[in-house]
Amino acid sequence: MFEAKLANAALLKKIIEAIKDLVTDAPFDCSESAMCLQAMDSSHVALVSLKMEVGLFDTYRCDRTINLGMSLANMSKALKCANNDDTCMIKYEEGDSDSITFTFADTKRDKTQDVTVKMMDIDSEHLGIPEQDYAVVCEMPASEFQKTCKDLTMFTDTLNVTATKAGIVFSGKGDNGQSVITYSPNSSADSEDDAVTLEVTDPVNVNFSIKYMNQFTKASSLSSRVRISLSNDVPIVVEYPLTDDGKSTGQQNGHLRFYLAPKIDEEDNMD
Amino acid sequence: MFEAKLANAALLKKIIEAIKDLVTDAPFDCSESAMCLQAMDSSHVALVSLKMEVGLFDTYRCDRTINLGMSLANMSKALKCANNDDTCMIKYEEGDSDSITFTFADTKRDKTQDVTVKMMDIDSEHLGIPEQDYAVVCEMPASEFQKTCKDLTMFTDTLNVTATKAGIVFSGKGDNGQSVITYSPNSSADSEDDAVTLEVTDPVNVNFSIKYMNQFTKASSLSSRVRISLSNDVPIVVEYPLTDDGKSTGQQNGHLRFYLAPKIDEEDNMD
Amino acid sequence: MFEAKLANAALLKKIIEAIKDLVTDAPFDCSESAMCLQAMDSSHVALVSLKMEVGLFDTYRCDRTINLGMSLANMSKALKCANNDDTCMIKYEEGDSDSITFTFADTKRDKTQDVTVKMMDIDSEHLGIPEQDYAVVCEMPASEFQKTCKDLTMFTDTLNVTATKAGIVFSGKGDNGQSVITYSPNSSADSEDDAVTLEVTDPVNVNFSIKYMNQFTKASSLSSRVRISLSNDVPIVVEYPLTDDGKSTGQQNGHLRFYLAPKIDEEDNMD
Repeated sequence: MFEAKLANAALLKKIIEAIKDLVTDAPFDCSESAMCLQAMDSSHVALVSLKMEVGLFDTYRCDRTINLGMSLANMSKALKCANNDDTCMIKYEEGDSDSITFTFADTKRDKTQDVTVKMMDIDSEHLGIPEQDYAVVCEMPASEFQKTCKDLTMFTDTLNVTATKAGIVFSGKGDNGQSVITYSPNSSADSEDDAVTLEVTDPVNVNFSIKYMNQFTKASSLSSRVRISLSNDVPIVVEYPLTDDGKSTGQQNGHLRFYLAPKIDEEDNMD
Repeated sequence: MFEAKLANAALLKKIIEAIKDLVTDAPFDCSESAMCLQAMDSSHVALVSLKMEVGLFDTYRCDRTINLGMSLANMSKALKCANNDDTCMIKYEEGDSDSITFTFADTKRDKTQDVTVKMMDIDSEHLGIPEQDYAVVCEMPASEFQKTCKDLTMFTDTLNVTATKAGIVFSGKGDNGQSVITYSPNSSADSEDDAVTLEVTDPVNVNFSIKYMNQFTKASSLSSRVRISLSNDVPIVVEYPLTDDGKSTGQQNGHLRFYLAPKIDEEDNMD
Repeated sequence: MFEAKLANAALLKKIIEAIKDLVTDAPFDCSESAMCLQAMDSSHVALVSLKMEVGLFDTYRCDRTINLGMSLANMSKALKCANNDDTCMIKYEEGDSDSITFTFADTKRDKTQDVTVKMMDIDSEHLGIPEQDYAVVCEMPASEFQKTCKDLTMFTDTLNVTATKAGIVFSGKGDNGQSVITYSPNSSADSEDDAVTLEVTDPVNVNFSIKYMNQFTKASSLSSRVRISLSNDVPIVVEYPLTDDGKSTGQQNGHLRFYLAPKIDEEDNMD
């Protein structure tokens, strides 16, 4: 039996909205410590890695490690029924039918909504992603990174990122013009959530498909901050921390990470 | 001569927006006590019944019972010109042309807008709707009923409603999943407008086309509350009370009602 | 060298959004006193005239009179990158490449964005528009004029304007109805920005294409007020003053004007 309860359905709703256009079906690996998901996008270029640790849940019970295959489109339908403040119980009983039940409760109104979604058979291929050190780690407001990618889309298909100790530069060049966005690391920002921080071991200069970046930044509603990890010739990691309150002050209890290999001579290649 | 003045054009605007997709042309029956409209939808499955009593109007004069046939699309165009806070005068002079004039006035700005709309010849077939007792009468927030119908539309074409003294359940089942929404009657809601109340004489279990329900709930902007009346094998009544202030505390001076026969063996049938 | 800096990119953004559907390419005439633009719309019926005086800019340097030909679509792309509160530097260096650079800076965040846009060769044909006295000059809230034009579009292609000392009347007549909007000049409005003022030397009665009026009123976000100047058989002038704060209390430092010839016997004709 698997049973886990979130205080606010909004968290799961935002996660599914962020990844459902990238990944259509995916297996949720549930263990006693976390609910995880790993999946390549349909063109096998980008990798999504979600980890929701026990600390995010109000109650959590997982008798044995199981793998719940879900259509993200159907899951999205189910979660659209929830009001953001509803509690969300996720329940699966073995031996039972091949379905998962989401129960949304609005305690103020003595209202409950049970949505039952059929499960799917999905081969789980857990990729070992090596933990590694990156030449550059940049943290900035998630909304700021989202706007930067969106702006550059008007000019180019290819996002160029260069970073040195002096700053990080996102740029794109097209037939009608070009745009260059420069962030100097600042510690003087009004609040911690507004700051751009930059740790540079070695300078980097890499290119990425901007189309995928725009997909990733759909997760901006999940977290006020994004962490971008870069090394030359290595996939970028775009990470949204999962916290109690979506702010950098909250306790981190997991993450939603996106990996994308750099563009090499106009060819996509997953390292 | 017919002349009636509303303090806020918003009321009539919302009524017409709520019914114009269901009913294209309709006769307004004006008498000395009320302005009424009754019409079947174009596929003759649902019935709309509007009653705007004299109490809703600031001034009201109807010399003799008349019948004003209107294209609701043209009426909607006229009302779109009004700001919500404008006063709205409706005027028809016999012997005069075959048109009705809506006058919207913004007294703060010394602005008036006269919109003249051609009338139509429409046969008025006033259906005698018998007043009857229903096995179940449920009142709930109009927005809540609207969301419930919208949510179920993701799963099904057919809305199932069951009600007992313990609660009222709206559910729908489709190929990819199902959803079950349960309301327990509560008297402990924060405000009267939030409460779900339920009077049950006999239990009911009936099915309806959810497409029509979604049409009816367009009237949710008219009133904070909706009253749903049900008996087995009898058309449901979805009623939005018309009050001075759109809240349950206001004085009721009419209603907008929708009638829909239950689905029987997947066939629509008006009882 | 030309270099000019606006405190808020929003001003230029709104100007370009207002005219880019009317004029595709246009020459900006930059002199030591102002940045100007004059262009006919593509069907040569309406004329756009923009004047941004030095006073609108934080810094302004124009070594010699130059003419910068721009694609407004590309300029719009560039300006979409700016946040409304960003400062906006416009820079062109002679001998340099054939491009203009817009630099948007968010000083709070130590962020700058350089957008470089290619210039175009455009013949500048500066039309001498004679300053003239008009029979009627009306000032009203820009949003009010916008709504008036939009409302009448539901009924007609042709806007009729009549004005006497008693008031100004905008009307339109179509197959399904007609609408007549009357403003009496009022000095009793709550605030100066809300008032409708009217100066009438001679009465006027003129017709205009409402399609163009709807184009012009896209400039309503630029200014709280619009000034409409009319004489019989002469093009109407629809003017949005450019002020520091977009309100009638601000210091005027230029304008965006639209000229449109009246309709004569259903024929468009630029006087």
